[in-house]
Amino acid sequence: MSFLNNTKIAVIGGGSWATALIKILCEQNNVQIRWWLRNQKDIEHIRKFHHNPTYLSDVVLSPKKVKVFEKTTEAVKGADYVILAVPAAFVRESLHHLTAKHLQGKRVISAIKGMVPDRNILVTDWISNDFSIPPEDTCVIAGPCHAEEVALEKQSYLSIASTECPAAEDFAALMTCRYVVANPLDDLYGVEYAAIMKNIIALACGITHGLGYGDNFQAVLVSNAMQEIGNLVTALDPRERNLSSSAYLGDLLVTAYSQFSRNRLFGNMIGRGYSVKAAQLEMKMIAEGYYATKSIQEINKVNHVHLPITNSVYRILYEEHAPALVMNDLKKLLK
Amino acid sequence: MSFLNNTKIAVIGGGSWATALIKILCEQNNVQIRWWLRNQKDIEHIRKFHHNPTYLSDVVLSPKKVKVFEKTTEAVKGADYVILAVPAAFVRESLHHLTAKHLQGKRVISAIKGMVPDRNILVTDWISNDFSIPPEDTCVIAGPCHAEEVALEKQSYLSIASTECPAAEDFAALMTCRYVVANPLDDLYGVEYAAIMKNIIALACGITHGLGYGDNFQAVLVSNAMQEIGNLVTALDPRERNLSSSAYLGDLLVTAYSQFSRNRLFGNMIGRGYSVKAAQLEMKMIAEGYYATKSIQEINKVNHVHLPITNSVYRILYEEHAPALVMNDLKKLLK
Repeated sequence: MSFLNNTKIAVIGGGSWATALIKILCEQNNVQIRWWLRNQKDIEHIRKFHHNPTYLSDVVLSPKKVKVFEKTTEAVKGADYVILAVPAAFVRESLHHLTAKHLQGKRVISAIKGMVPDRNILVTDWISNDFSIPPEDTCVIAGPCHAEEVALEKQSYLSIASTECPAAEDFAALMTCRYVVANPLDDLYGVEYAAIMKNIIALACGITHGLGYGDNFQAVLVSNAMQEIGNLVTALDPRERNLSSSAYLGDLLVTAYSQFSRNRLFGNMIGRGYSVKAAQLEMKMIAEGYYATKSIQEINKVNHVHLPITNSVYRILYEEHAPALVMNDLKKLLK
Repeated sequence: MSFLNNTKIAVIGGGSWATALIKILCEQNNVQIRWWLRNQKDIEHIRKFHHNPTYLSDVVLSPKKVKVFEKTTEAVKGADYVILAVPAAFVRESLHHLTAKHLQGKRVISAIKGMVPDRNILVTDWISNDFSIPPEDTCVIAGPCHAEEVALEKQSYLSIASTECPAAEDFAALMTCRYVVANPLDDLYGVEYAAIMKNIIALACGITHGLGYGDNFQAVLVSNAMQEIGNLVTALDPRERNLSSSAYLGDLLVTAYSQFSRNRLFGNMIGRGYSVKAAQLEMKMIAEGYYATKSIQEINKVNHVHLPITNSVYRILYEEHAPALVMNDLKKLLK
């Protein structure tokens, strides 16, 4: 696998998912990671102590392999791959200094689970359009995978999707190590939309749990959600897919059922009566699913796919309907 | 809905699932429930105090609607429906005194998640063959539904399947109440096999959890399991099915992920190093999935469907292979 020799990978973003991806990449022998983080204090800490002080702080990041940069333009210099791992809400701001020229000839990998704000387009579409990257040189990384379990080196699986297999295959080889199996797929759009939808579903799971619904209901909610995801993805990009595979169902399950899911936790607070603002303050962040709900609701104005769960979450988060009443309506639509 | 007037329903079995089904049926106005339990002490307790002392003892069972019987031959007398709700291992023994004549003209509903011991056939097939009940007069009840949450009146959904819709539709109407939606399906065999398989998968989830695998792995295991169930069911009874619906995926999820799942708990003990005997002693029972594993493994000798998860559980439970080594092999087969 000579193509792995001295592979240079820029990572844009300083959160737990970025940190976990860097940990996985560091398992390869011949990689150089060029890491951009927004926070100057974190940069200095990493340079001195070789771990991220804010997220997954247990994870030691080899200084031989990992260099941190203040400027995105510096970080991407000479990189073969550029991984985007910032929240969707900040992706435009984070790449503000980059032009098509900076990214020319590179493969761009989105580890973002959300749509580009205000534009309501997929991150990979935005990269192709605004940075003139050929679609076949873009990839997405999907789960099922929580960063926290990567830090613990628990056996995990990743799904790497591109429009055509070579990009996904090459990048999957880079992401496979002792405790991670990365599987390539050729369904870029399906995997990317499913990864966005799963966060909305996790919000719904959290909301209903917060309202006192139990495991029986959650199983029905998730089954119906899988069909809702299938219907949306088929409408947006019709083709054969095995929706029961890890990239779709698995990714949904890890988000909908896990203790580590921030979207589920956010939903849970809403179900218990917190306002969106209060939940945001408590968590010091807004869950990705909050923005995803609005994006999907808006793009669906064109397609009119029946999305009862997304629609319910939208009514609660954006139209201030009472969660108990909305979920009472929803439960009649499920089967 | 005049057909509901004075509907007589015999229930065979005294466990938590039988008790939950009786609670649901008691929500109807004009039903008479004729309940057979094996345990004489329980019978006397129910006659006196109107609740099951051993399972779901919170649930009060109206004496106007529920009568208990010592003999199955008495319980089924005049019944329109006979619900079988004993563990699969005891189904032949429990129905020992019943002949085709006793069940003639009745619809027989299996709430059993397992195959008839030694015969390795579905309970509904056995009822059709050995009691001369037309297949269209047999049904199965599947989840996703834990008895414990029915007791708490948490919103739940049931799947009622028969070969043709009328039987399932009639019975689903009887099982629908304030907190339960029962959905009829015309896929008797698919739902019955999926309900059996899910207990094997729950064992695998428990075993891997006991070994220290995390949520990331579990999501992949359950996704692969859904495909394994789909492959088996398609081989045994080929037809179009929406495997993401509640009757299949939902039923699997509630068993694989819930705190109430006895199969998952049993598997967890095995993963932590208990022998089958020790786990059985600790739980005072053997989980249904233990027997199901053997039955499915044996019927698959004919079909040779690729069932890596079932095969792994079989090796652990019946061939004394070390759980850690078996799951290490399995993880390489998952994707």
